[in-house]
Amino acid sequence: MKVSVVQYTPEYLKVDANLDRLDGLCAATDADLIVLPELAASGYFFKSVADLVDVSEQIPDGRVCRRLQKIAQRRECTIVCGVAEKNGPYFFNSAVVVGAEGVAAAYRKVHLFYKEKELFRAGKEPYEVIDLYDRNGTKYRLGVMICFDWYFPEAARSLALKGADLIAHPSNLVRKDCPRAMPIRALENRVFTATANRTGSESHGDETLTFIGQSLICSPDGQAIGSLSATEEAVLTAEIDISEARNKRITPLNDLFLDRRPGRYYY
Amino acid sequence: MKVSVVQYTPEYLKVDANLDRLDGLCAATDADLIVLPELAASGYFFKSVADLVDVSEQIPDGRVCRRLQKIAQRRECTIVCGVAEKNGPYFFNSAVVVGAEGVAAAYRKVHLFYKEKELFRAGKEPYEVIDLYDRNGTKYRLGVMICFDWYFPEAARSLALKGADLIAHPSNLVRKDCPRAMPIRALENRVFTATANRTGSESHGDETLTFIGQSLICSPDGQAIGSLSATEEAVLTAEIDISEARNKRITPLNDLFLDRRPGRYYY
Repeated sequence: MKVSVVQYTPEYLKVDANLDRLDGLCAATDADLIVLPELAASGYFFKSVADLVDVSEQIPDGRVCRRLQKIAQRRECTIVCGVAEKNGPYFFNSAVVVGAEGVAAAYRKVHLFYKEKELFRAGKEPYEVIDLYDRNGTKYRLGVMICFDWYFPEAARSLALKGADLIAHPSNLVRKDCPRAMPIRALENRVFTATANRTGSESHGDETLTFIGQSLICSPDGQAIGSLSATEEAVLTAEIDISEARNKRITPLNDLFLDRRPGRYYY
Repeated sequence: MKVSVVQYTPEYLKVDANLDRLDGLCAATDADLIVLPELAASGYFFKSVADLVDVSEQIPDGRVCRRLQKIAQRRECTIVCGVAEKNGPYFFNSAVVVGAEGVAAAYRKVHLFYKEKELFRAGKEPYEVIDLYDRNGTKYRLGVMICFDWYFPEAARSLALKGADLIAHPSNLVRKDCPRAMPIRALENRVFTATANRTGSESHGDETLTFIGQSLICSPDGQAIGSLSATEEAVLTAEIDISEARNKRITPLNDLFLDRRPGRYYY
């Protein structure tokens, strides 16, 4: 199957313009799965709750979800995209998995980074995996984590233990370490990972956050099989053989998951 | 405090000669803690159970343990060293923490690599941390894991959650990935790590294992603060401020351990 990650600079609060740009970027790939950044349509560093109110939406019926569905229909693909979710009085930093039929799954970010804590609630649901099919009808199992989740090995591990072959990782990374950590997340779980990060910067008061780009796709043997620069706006596509992620054997006598010894671990 | 890792090529089964060499290598450092490789006195790739019987010993009274105690007394330091342990009818790939008073703690490798499974039993005890003191009387908390344990994020995580400031990591690495994974293990737990790997190669029948050297010491911000080449025999020493490992804060609003959400994780 083919997986793409999209790296670009959204304009703060310009949801419709951003969706137009994302639509155009998605047109550049015939991937089965396209991963877009965290909060890809809204921008990230909210100046006020009012700004967040303006751009947040209910899942699955909001404008971002509806537009993603149209793109998925047109391109016959599945899209993973970060969305500012409004649910009653609460906001979540969420990601949706959208196909031609609409939203197939949603994930609420569990590990909130920095000032996200002032606006969003942390997701309370466990990590879950969804069955999807590529254009050839081959099943693959998708897990989703968002940005800062990378720092916690338990996130990718939970998804992999639940059967994820591929982890979609919409991001708005501002710290430097993730691009060298993701190959290790892929390696230690023998899964594919697809990190779609944004570029550009956003300011709030005296503080500017600069996003580091460097989106990357990693293979189960811990290699970055493709990556983008710190600043380019581009689509990165990789052809992957999902069956590689199902083989957890690392020597003739070692299986990565059968060799785990949960009884010895401390959580 | 000062921590050293020793990288060298042991001679297969030549325990006394290897201990002489280790004694000499330890004399090259005034570190508070010296980490030696996995199975540092015996060699690794046993040609038969009989060979393992010859070089294995009871902990804490075997010849390797006794000799390490003498070195620790003379150098006023603590030593971590891999030892082939014999316990009744069973063998363990173990590591001992030895000070002037003798063996202070022992760890039996939980994740056995490849043909180790044909000779050793896996450790059944949970990961534990021990309180130690440097020459200035400053307490530090030491965890021990051995070689292939690096592959499983749960090993370092268990030690860090139990309070380890520093993870000693005696190794006989033959796979290429560990040197780029250890900085991530340090980063994701905000601990120091000290990987002491061996060099050289050993054969059994048609099969040769070549050990990759590249011993390294990593800091809680995920940097290799020192490393050795693939082939040199040498002692690598780093001065570390153990208090850095006690500060799990990564932004003004994020604490690496307080931000964990075990209820969301799947084990």
